[in-house]
Amino acid sequence: MDTRITVTHDLLAALEQELQQVDFSSLFLLTDTNVERCVLPLIEPLLKKYNTPVIVIEAGEEHKNIDSLTRIWQALSEGGATRSSLLVNLGGGVITDIGGFAAATFKRGIRYVNIPTTVLGTVDASVGGKTAVDFMGLKNEIGAFHKPIAVILSPQPLSTLPRTEVLSGFAEIVKNSLISSEEFYNRTLLTDPCEEPEKLFSLIEESVRFKERITIEDPTEKGLRKILNFGHTAGHAFESWMLKRATPVTHGEAVANGMLVAIILSHLHSSLPSEQIHIYSQNILKRYYRPIPFGCKDQDELIRLMSHDKKNRTPGEVNFVLLEAVGSPIIDRPLTPADIRVALDIYSDLR
Amino acid sequence: MDTRITVTHDLLAALEQELQQVDFSSLFLLTDTNVERCVLPLIEPLLKKYNTPVIVIEAGEEHKNIDSLTRIWQALSEGGATRSSLLVNLGGGVITDIGGFAAATFKRGIRYVNIPTTVLGTVDASVGGKTAVDFMGLKNEIGAFHKPIAVILSPQPLSTLPRTEVLSGFAEIVKNSLISSEEFYNRTLLTDPCEEPEKLFSLIEESVRFKERITIEDPTEKGLRKILNFGHTAGHAFESWMLKRATPVTHGEAVANGMLVAIILSHLHSSLPSEQIHIYSQNILKRYYRPIPFGCKDQDELIRLMSHDKKNRTPGEVNFVLLEAVGSPIIDRPLTPADIRVALDIYSDLR
Repeated sequence: MDTRITVTHDLLAALEQELQQVDFSSLFLLTDTNVERCVLPLIEPLLKKYNTPVIVIEAGEEHKNIDSLTRIWQALSEGGATRSSLLVNLGGGVITDIGGFAAATFKRGIRYVNIPTTVLGTVDASVGGKTAVDFMGLKNEIGAFHKPIAVILSPQPLSTLPRTEVLSGFAEIVKNSLISSEEFYNRTLLTDPCEEPEKLFSLIEESVRFKERITIEDPTEKGLRKILNFGHTAGHAFESWMLKRATPVTHGEAVANGMLVAIILSHLHSSLPSEQIHIYSQNILKRYYRPIPFGCKDQDELIRLMSHDKKNRTPGEVNFVLLEAVGSPIIDRPLTPADIRVALDIYSDLR
Repeated sequence: MDTRITVTHDLLAALEQELQQVDFSSLFLLTDTNVERCVLPLIEPLLKKYNTPVIVIEAGEEHKNIDSLTRIWQALSEGGATRSSLLVNLGGGVITDIGGFAAATFKRGIRYVNIPTTVLGTVDASVGGKTAVDFMGLKNEIGAFHKPIAVILSPQPLSTLPRTEVLSGFAEIVKNSLISSEEFYNRTLLTDPCEEPEKLFSLIEESVRFKERITIEDPTEKGLRKILNFGHTAGHAFESWMLKRATPVTHGEAVANGMLVAIILSHLHSSLPSEQIHIYSQNILKRYYRPIPFGCKDQDELIRLMSHDKKNRTPGEVNFVLLEAVGSPIIDRPLTPADIRVALDIYSDLR
């Protein structure tokens, strides 16, 4: 099933039109304490019209857990939700992930619509149907593949976001452009995400449509979809490592740095021209993101973190997504710790 | 994906062969406190060989809940399960339902094998991929569709079951035969489930293979699969009603009585010949099951319970599966309370 993607400058009208197209028995809305205050008022008249129970969970990744999930199930059950009910998730990635998982499992699956309210959530989590909660300190340990029937993209909720959040989401746009096409990547290079909101929004839209196409071809990440992990092998390691040192970075910041490592490896172990290292380093990384401050003695720990990634099967080797060229990704390229050490050295020199 | 169905008199050998066919990173086994004592020893050597963590939950439907589910997730996580791990569910319907749901949701889905140990669990829950836990007093409120990769059927665990359990499962076999073919139904009529274990086991096998064929065609119960609910609309109402009166009956007993109501309705509102009412009543219902003792004044309450079934959408009407003939079911036949009252009157006269 494909997800219907609607782009609008009028969230209220677009949601109303969406609801008129869907035959549902009752409507529910999930959001968090921040979004309730800032964005919910935009669609409030519609919620009144449909007599919609609003389920609110605490904002923040630490609430993407079984307790919040149980509260959502309970609200659906007590609100008399049936198999034909519809859930609208209004929020960032935490809300669309946990709301999508609640929808995947309530009465063995009900339909849901995502209205993402952050740049990262729009680009990274609003389409594709990867739903989840964190469990025992592990991200997305419990979840399901269950696609939203529709996603509504609007610049309205995105207009007031802080710079850090915009840049965190921008890193995922850069990633999608790098694995998609030279034309898309070039436009990304020419956009200042913090100063050019309209150009940014058109990149967001293209990014979401690109991801939806990929996930239609490979809904459960058996192959092709793995290209979306470009930059994430080193990126996740950087994210965990900085978190352990009590100097956390945003997901986008970690991935932006991880992409430089992946680009270096793509030059060393595939056919990506060396100038791409410098184009990325100058135009993206140095312009918008802080470097990850590790030394030689930290490399072993970083490589150990990379090898813990759930996509790895062969002990001692780490699977990377590499680029043969901009727009031509290759998946499942196993590299040794020695290979990775060389790339981390080059990363440190460039930094 | 189809479920591989293996029939064996040697559970240990069949499981060993199954495990050799599957490429998995680690093995886990789920069972309950009863089955652990009675059946687990049959396959213990294999568990030792694969160094298999055994997850044991308390026996009984009241433990098919979020707490037990969380304990299973936790055991998988702490045991280092990966996306390539394999879970074996050894037990009745509670174990295959909750274990299947844990597998559906751990890391967004791992593979699992069912080894059913009750007649009801074998016929009703071992294939088809309907997985679930109960929630807030509602049966199967939270769940997912996720098929086992294999089911191993063996008479070994079934040999020591009490008569009540055998008859509870037999009712589901009768149901499958009624909606499947005259030939299958006739063989069912000629089998004494409590005295002829080999004939019973061959009916069990046929029943499971029939259900698997149906669920391949309609995995998520959009249409055809609804025929499996034959007898269950009145059956579930009887089950709830007797439970409320603190005189619970088994699922099979309730369904066996519900099927008589459905057969009467099939004669009144479709083309099923009237002699089928008497064949069923004499050869199945009166021979093996107690009648449900309701009076005229209870009919409204029973009809109210039928209309609460999650398959209904039009208020005031109740959807039934009827038979045009033995082996020719029709789904979604809406009937009015007046129609149902007539059938309940005839049921009471026959009883």
